[in-house]
Amino acid sequence: MLKLLGERGTTTGMTQPSHLHPDRLFPASDPARSIARDLHGAVSDLPLISPHGHTDPSWFAQNGRFASPTALFLTPDHYVLRMLKSRGISYDALGIPRKDGRAIETDGRKAWRLFADNYYLFAGTPSKTWVDHSLHAVFGITEELSGATADSIYDAIDAKLSSPELLPRAILDRFKVEVIATTEFALDPLTHHQSMSEQGLIGQVRTTYRPDDVTDPGRAAIVENLHTFGELTGEDISKWDGLINAHRKRREYFRKYGAVATDHGVPTANTADLPFNEKQALLEKVLAGRHDANDAELFRAQMLTEMALLSVEDGMVMQIHAGSRRNTDPLLFDERGADLGADIPGPTDYVGGLKALLGRCGNEPNLQIIMFVLDETTYARELAPMAGYWPSLMIGPPWWFHDSPQGIRRYLDQVVETAGFYNLAGFNDDTRALLSIPARHDVWRREVSGFLANWVAENRLSKASAEEVARHLSYQAAKDAYKIT
Amino acid sequence: MLKLLGERGTTTGMTQPSHLHPDRLFPASDPARSIARDLHGAVSDLPLISPHGHTDPSWFAQNGRFASPTALFLTPDHYVLRMLKSRGISYDALGIPRKDGRAIETDGRKAWRLFADNYYLFAGTPSKTWVDHSLHAVFGITEELSGATADSIYDAIDAKLSSPELLPRAILDRFKVEVIATTEFALDPLTHHQSMSEQGLIGQVRTTYRPDDVTDPGRAAIVENLHTFGELTGEDISKWDGLINAHRKRREYFRKYGAVATDHGVPTANTADLPFNEKQALLEKVLAGRHDANDAELFRAQMLTEMALLSVEDGMVMQIHAGSRRNTDPLLFDERGADLGADIPGPTDYVGGLKALLGRCGNEPNLQIIMFVLDETTYARELAPMAGYWPSLMIGPPWWFHDSPQGIRRYLDQVVETAGFYNLAGFNDDTRALLSIPARHDVWRREVSGFLANWVAENRLSKASAEEVARHLSYQAAKDAYKIT
Amino acid sequence: MLKLLGERGTTTGMTQPSHLHPDRLFPASDPARSIARDLHGAVSDLPLISPHGHTDPSWFAQNGRFASPTALFLTPDHYVLRMLKSRGISYDALGIPRKDGRAIETDGRKAWRLFADNYYLFAGTPSKTWVDHSLHAVFGITEELSGATADSIYDAIDAKLSSPELLPRAILDRFKVEVIATTEFALDPLTHHQSMSEQGLIGQVRTTYRPDDVTDPGRAAIVENLHTFGELTGEDISKWDGLINAHRKRREYFRKYGAVATDHGVPTANTADLPFNEKQALLEKVLAGRHDANDAELFRAQMLTEMALLSVEDGMVMQIHAGSRRNTDPLLFDERGADLGADIPGPTDYVGGLKALLGRCGNEPNLQIIMFVLDETTYARELAPMAGYWPSLMIGPPWWFHDSPQGIRRYLDQVVETAGFYNLAGFNDDTRALLSIPARHDVWRREVSGFLANWVAENRLSKASAEEVARHLSYQAAKDAYKIT
Repeated sequence: MLKLLGERGTTTGMTQPSHLHPDRLFPASDPARSIARDLHGAVSDLPLISPHGHTDPSWFAQNGRFASPTALFLTPDHYVLRMLKSRGISYDALGIPRKDGRAIETDGRKAWRLFADNYYLFAGTPSKTWVDHSLHAVFGITEELSGATADSIYDAIDAKLSSPELLPRAILDRFKVEVIATTEFALDPLTHHQSMSEQGLIGQVRTTYRPDDVTDPGRAAIVENLHTFGELTGEDISKWDGLINAHRKRREYFRKYGAVATDHGVPTANTADLPFNEKQALLEKVLAGRHDANDAELFRAQMLTEMALLSVEDGMVMQIHAGSRRNTDPLLFDERGADLGADIPGPTDYVGGLKALLGRCGNEPNLQIIMFVLDETTYARELAPMAGYWPSLMIGPPWWFHDSPQGIRRYLDQVVETAGFYNLAGFNDDTRALLSIPARHDVWRREVSGFLANWVAENRLSKASAEEVARHLSYQAAKDAYKIT
Repeated sequence: MLKLLGERGTTTGMTQPSHLHPDRLFPASDPARSIARDLHGAVSDLPLISPHGHTDPSWFAQNGRFASPTALFLTPDHYVLRMLKSRGISYDALGIPRKDGRAIETDGRKAWRLFADNYYLFAGTPSKTWVDHSLHAVFGITEELSGATADSIYDAIDAKLSSPELLPRAILDRFKVEVIATTEFALDPLTHHQSMSEQGLIGQVRTTYRPDDVTDPGRAAIVENLHTFGELTGEDISKWDGLINAHRKRREYFRKYGAVATDHGVPTANTADLPFNEKQALLEKVLAGRHDANDAELFRAQMLTEMALLSVEDGMVMQIHAGSRRNTDPLLFDERGADLGADIPGPTDYVGGLKALLGRCGNEPNLQIIMFVLDETTYARELAPMAGYWPSLMIGPPWWFHDSPQGIRRYLDQVVETAGFYNLAGFNDDTRALLSIPARHDVWRREVSGFLANWVAENRLSKASAEEVARHLSYQAAKDAYKIT
Repeated sequence: MLKLLGERGTTTGMTQPSHLHPDRLFPASDPARSIARDLHGAVSDLPLISPHGHTDPSWFAQNGRFASPTALFLTPDHYVLRMLKSRGISYDALGIPRKDGRAIETDGRKAWRLFADNYYLFAGTPSKTWVDHSLHAVFGITEELSGATADSIYDAIDAKLSSPELLPRAILDRFKVEVIATTEFALDPLTHHQSMSEQGLIGQVRTTYRPDDVTDPGRAAIVENLHTFGELTGEDISKWDGLINAHRKRREYFRKYGAVATDHGVPTANTADLPFNEKQALLEKVLAGRHDANDAELFRAQMLTEMALLSVEDGMVMQIHAGSRRNTDPLLFDERGADLGADIPGPTDYVGGLKALLGRCGNEPNLQIIMFVLDETTYARELAPMAGYWPSLMIGPPWWFHDSPQGIRRYLDQVVETAGFYNLAGFNDDTRALLSIPARHDVWRREVSGFLANWVAENRLSKASAEEVARHLSYQAAKDAYKIT
């Protein structure tokens, strides 16, 4: 029989399983451990700022019941899916739809059991931390997921999903989410945000302008998208100035729905600053569908600079998520599509890549760019030196595979001494999984506390400074970085 | 006078020199130290699985006496030689033969003294750990090697070399070596393995199919080797299908002598999947000796894919050792040949390199590839994300210069959170030095125990899970990865 | 009112602010902390060897009063300036001169207040460690710099600047600087060193031959410089042999003023070994001003090999500082010039880069090259394996952005196991700020002590060995590496 804690049931370390221990992730020994506990105590109850992520706006607009445990924890989580696949479990058996409509597992409970049977594979991974935390914090479950507990945990979750406190908005409030940003493409009608606007939710929920659909010629639908973009904005996108003006208008439209930032997912950090006639010629090539891979890269590179120039105009913060090699398994892409675990990072050159953009407007006071990084070798060698020089550059938190306890340690180890604490953009959870939000912020706050505690214990930082920095990195840094007032 | 312990003489920390302390390499403070001690206690007596290495099969086939202390510890160990050379000691004085036959030091004791006089240079290196461990575990010597102890230690070793327990097979049994694989080229007649087969030793000792002699056009003898390969297998290697069939037959032959794996030493991780006519044309170019460096790279790249396809057929595990720049000192190579310390790693692109192979057969259930890595920047950025996705990919243990305490820490730090513990291939000692085998496994087991102990102490993992993982990584992981049943 | 300690006032941990705690930077817990304290105690009073840096020789030759606190701590320190700029503070407001002569802040106290107000930005940076240490060790100030203390600290410094013990030579003696090397270009007349020679100071102060002004065709004045070089040496620099002979003579001239080393600042580690006619043709291209970026790179590459060959002749130690991308902010360069914070490191290939040089003379017993590195990914992958093989190669200490507590930890973590401790060149402070010299050596010695203490606590090294290594890395290693007798 499954042990359930009261929703906010206080627990002690003694009866608590290891992975829910109140001291988890803190340094192993005193005095650093005690200091970490104190620092974490000062920040653990601060509201959550979630300025970048991929939650579904319909959740908040419609506030409907979440579907089954499987749909909540397994099917949408590419971290979980990829690990199971890596040990030979097929996506068919996990219920991931195929483009060709061939049969897949449709019994959510069966897929859940497969997940539970193989949950030992996640030992040591952040996925386990997030799932464990969610099971505990949201559902009061303290037992470890395994083949033995698969059904009882499934039932416990399922039973709760209809309760009012499990509805999306209640979850936001319960988790003290002060601000959460979703991410929409330029052509998105923002229907759900319109609905939220009518309900007075904009401010707590905000959109983000991610125009990859009209800036990335690597997309199959680029030509069609650009034409739609022109129609939507009433601009002649066959002219470069018209294209930029279309962005200008669309950014304004997104700001109506709370957008404070733009976001750009790019394979490299390359930027360009071409003469006007070359820009126009490049656009014509793209519109004619005659562009090759180099043209596509150049177009993306130029568009980053254009977006920076528009940010100088309108003050929107610019996020660059660079360095992922997408869809490295062609079979998976052909069978089931994108975002299912086959994106792998690569080396990225930030100094060379950003040269054109920074040379054009890197010293503009109104420009704020947050760099998200998958190539950790650049932390100390390029990113920290750049953020510690350019007034327009900040370093985003460890991203994707590096959003983990060890990843956060490597990040702080390598960026702080050169960039300082105040050129960091605080934390982003960047999640598609609503329930993982507090779990991810909790890991960040614990790791920040532990890192600072070690420095206090080594007499490198006063405890008062450490607490100030911990508070900043847990809350205010994100508001400052995203200009959220 | 030299202190000698009984062969299995129990020792206490108090009388023990630091480098043989029973807690060596464990975390410095409690509680992590005590937990590490417990975890290590659970794995320290497990049998050794040594599925990849370069020991000499004649040792086991003939079971003869080892030569002098110098020939045992100094002359064949490129780790030791290179360090001495780096501080100005000549290979002549160390007795390393020259191609031109000019005089070198032939008095083993003199070379040994030079080694002992300069043994302080090895402070902090794994070489010292391995030598110290061997001196202690095999010869019962607890004194540190130095100029002062050079002769007494030389004599103590020399006196023991004829005793029955110092014969190679006795050493295997004493070290609890359950399985050890040697590595032979495709043209190797496997004479010693034939002899072992007659003696019923195959199973404990196994060969490995390493066809670099017929897959690497960078070798001077490639054309001759390919012709020999054809004669040996009765295949027409001037046709691509004949060449592949020659491999098919030769792999089968190696399996008779226990081979469960193939191995491939390549400068890059590049693979190719060419159309048939291009493969045939490339082969013809190589056979005509008209290939340049690019052709050689392409041939190696294509052969890796072919080997993967043969593994899909026959189930042999594929090992790829990529990323070493060989023979970077032309003077050394001209004077004395290869494998004497002048090989230096370089950056390696695994995502781009393996694209062709993985696109062709990366999802085949029968394929298992173990990647060995010299470019640590790829651990978190490429290798762990790849192994955490592809069912066919596992990450080999830290290799060569990275097979060291700090190297193992960096490895576990960077791969585990994304790849999990169960996409790792356990440990390989990869040694040419029989006596270093237990020393190397001991370092691995201590480091794994220490790493897990820190996580237990930080409440990230239960002690029970940690023990399960420690056992897996110390023993079963290697058997699973190499399909040894 | 500002608290002032006696100049050598003993302080206890209890009354001491955290950042001046006697145990600062040591491991957080015992037993490692106590061991670190012991090791540091054995090295903290050793004289300082400062074999590479950028202090101004006129200070020592003229022994004049230092200017204002602002001119001492703020204006010349690009580490400090860049951080302030990164948070939006303009170089105008900090009093950094413009080429166009437009007005900047000239009130040193105002700039100082701006620095003090924003001093919290430096939390966790080595800049803060160095400034705090200097304020304490030189001026007896224990209060933290802030807006509140800006004026009182300014006054306290200013009041002391005229006292005899604040004159440059007194500072050298008080800091126990046994040897300090400045760095001069090939065309430098060495006026100040001549003056020092007459005063008998050469030996304690030495010059270094840094011929970038005549070896780097990337410099605007290269042609003019080469002609001046010819006149200065009486050699025909339009002939390759004349050019080399000019270097030969100039190196000899520098040695008169104590030079034991040359130094080379290069964007890459590339070297070349061209046939004679190609060298001559390249020189002619450069002298005609017809060289492009590739020619410039090839000329620098060839000159590195030439410098190595001259070192084989004359025994001067060769320093290579490779891997910085200079002047990445064109606006800053146009407005105010070089060395103001916009240099950012990049990836560097040492194996490929040094191939030509090492192939030509890497085994020459008289050659000693010290590599300074900004690309930490090469520590374990390339540098340590190279230094652990080539008798001519040593690894310099962590440089520039990596000369910090975490930077030193990453360095020792990654180089020691393969290169050993005895292929390291000890410490360089590499500073332009005289007062930071003891602060930087102190951080190095504390970090070395802490690193070794952890290894002793982990029973990897005896305490006696650790103390020997600590002494070596704190003092003798630098003397050995630079052949200072």
